[in-house]
Amino acid sequence: MAELADPSVLVDPANWTCPAPLRDQPIVVMGHGGGGTLSAELVEQVFTPAYGNATLAALGDSAVLDLGGARLAFSTDSYVVRPLFFPGGSLGDLAVNGTVNDLAMSGARPAHLSAAFVLEEGVEVAVVERIARALGQAAEAAGVTVVTGDTKVVEAGHGDGVYVTTAGIGLVPDGVDIRPQRARPGDAVIVSGPIGLHGVAIMSVREGLDFGVEVASDTAPLADLVAAVLAATADVHVLRDPTRGGLAASLNEIARASGTGVRLRERDVPVPEAVANACGFLGLDPLYVANEGRLVAFVPRPAADEVLAAMRAHPRGAGAVIVGECVAEHPGMVVVSTGLGGTRVVDMPLGEQLPRIC
Amino acid sequence: MAELADPSVLVDPANWTCPAPLRDQPIVVMGHGGGGTLSAELVEQVFTPAYGNATLAALGDSAVLDLGGARLAFSTDSYVVRPLFFPGGSLGDLAVNGTVNDLAMSGARPAHLSAAFVLEEGVEVAVVERIARALGQAAEAAGVTVVTGDTKVVEAGHGDGVYVTTAGIGLVPDGVDIRPQRARPGDAVIVSGPIGLHGVAIMSVREGLDFGVEVASDTAPLADLVAAVLAATADVHVLRDPTRGGLAASLNEIARASGTGVRLRERDVPVPEAVANACGFLGLDPLYVANEGRLVAFVPRPAADEVLAAMRAHPRGAGAVIVGECVAEHPGMVVVSTGLGGTRVVDMPLGEQLPRIC
Repeated sequence: MAELADPSVLVDPANWTCPAPLRDQPIVVMGHGGGGTLSAELVEQVFTPAYGNATLAALGDSAVLDLGGARLAFSTDSYVVRPLFFPGGSLGDLAVNGTVNDLAMSGARPAHLSAAFVLEEGVEVAVVERIARALGQAAEAAGVTVVTGDTKVVEAGHGDGVYVTTAGIGLVPDGVDIRPQRARPGDAVIVSGPIGLHGVAIMSVREGLDFGVEVASDTAPLADLVAAVLAATADVHVLRDPTRGGLAASLNEIARASGTGVRLRERDVPVPEAVANACGFLGLDPLYVANEGRLVAFVPRPAADEVLAAMRAHPRGAGAVIVGECVAEHPGMVVVSTGLGGTRVVDMPLGEQLPRIC
Repeated sequence: MAELADPSVLVDPANWTCPAPLRDQPIVVMGHGGGGTLSAELVEQVFTPAYGNATLAALGDSAVLDLGGARLAFSTDSYVVRPLFFPGGSLGDLAVNGTVNDLAMSGARPAHLSAAFVLEEGVEVAVVERIARALGQAAEAAGVTVVTGDTKVVEAGHGDGVYVTTAGIGLVPDGVDIRPQRARPGDAVIVSGPIGLHGVAIMSVREGLDFGVEVASDTAPLADLVAAVLAATADVHVLRDPTRGGLAASLNEIARASGTGVRLRERDVPVPEAVANACGFLGLDPLYVANEGRLVAFVPRPAADEVLAAMRAHPRGAGAVIVGECVAEHPGMVVVSTGLGGTRVVDMPLGEQLPRIC
């Protein structure tokens, strides 16, 4: 595991304040879709006031609802990844795994998916079929069924081949209460495996770069891994899959939602050599690179070893490690201890370093 | 109420066969999104084999599922209407009403929505905000809450301002079993009000046409109307909202799913004067023009008068009329008795007459 890219600026967390939000941005820019500060502003300033309800304001990866006596998780994502096919997966895989993982991050067992396609006039039916098959196979692998769907077509020049939006529903077991607000000082921060693979896989094909070894996306369903964790301990505070904006965005969201601080140890963050090399070459920080088959868990320190053992016994969590802890200091802020004995702030990204990663 | 456009071909149903499907269409064309034969082929030849499960194959407007002891309806639609704002509504209204109506057509009480936006780089944030507010207001009017969402951004030239995909969940009351397969000879066919308004409203603004009076879309939530019908009788066989492809597409789907025939009386189909004029001018048949706030109900003839009275007592069903009946003859086929004493086949449309109507 390589070290993270060298920090260009070392900041004392005690003297640091969050940058003011970019209010009154009049035009949508690519960064609004990046899962960082701009995305959060759009949600907080446009969508939440427009819809106005407490469930949405909770801002989890999925909503948890009581309906007809059942405790349901409900989530949606649109997938606009480019290219449609990449090492390790395709739009069809992401459209399943992204949504089932959002459900799983509330502790739910994903059950059913909807799939709505927006097709661009002129795309080959064979391409649509290939994506639909990948989606069907990914659903089977994730243990969910695609039960309803829709297709719209837009004129050539108003799409990009295929966009897919999935929504998912699942059941949250009784007693499970997993959400970003529940992070507490003393929690161990566990990452389920090496980070940065999905983002680097997309970059390598999109930019035509060769990093010596082929890097494949980590796209995978995580509900079984979550079930294994919950079988090891009922005391899981937070789960999150660090997709757009990477581990940095997920940890910042958790820190802000819970009013706690997060402290990472740089040397413990699992960055594969190929990811480190690619990031060095491209000037990126692996903490900000998207993952599609990893989760970060906050669990009380006494339960951490059991959780770690349960993860490592599962194929999707074989590389699980404790990367840091939740602290009472610098609430809402994520810092990383560097190999040099310094500390740097890991801020919320403004947008994604590479748009249309998922 | 004006008569329908004069049929150009009179066909004897006894000597008529369904056109062979257009297999091996190699490229997606606009008609694949039109809700007609091309859409059905895409579902039957591409999506259903790829996902392979019985719920999807039932091809209702929504899936009905047992989950955690609850009987859930689950549905999704993408909305790519152009323009974003039109007389009577906007993309935001359609994104709510279209999905809650799909739920309501299984007899469900819609409860919660997800809303996923695909934004085109460069669109004004104020436009997004206007659509989000319309969506929030429409949700409130429909009695549902928007509980989860997503935003993606695509480069300028790969979208059309704003696309929205909503998914919805609702509860199906015990004992309710409403689906296209349940149509039976002897059922009365009831339409809840005048047809063709949504399609003509979109056409008039898109083509810059002036039909003398402004035609406003009928976009509206229909769950309350459905509840009123179900309070009048438990014996409702089929409900359908005739959106893309109009009444013609919905009736053809019902006839095929149930293996029955449908016979309409042209003079009883409620076509507003302005719709008839616009259709005459544009060479369209009102039976094929989209609606967004109407439903068609199949109920046993003995219950029809009660259902009609219940509909007429509700603002959304004030113009309800019986337009025909379900018959044992010409199974899978819809025919209309013309004012001249003749009969013509109302075939499934190939695609929508005007793309991106919803």
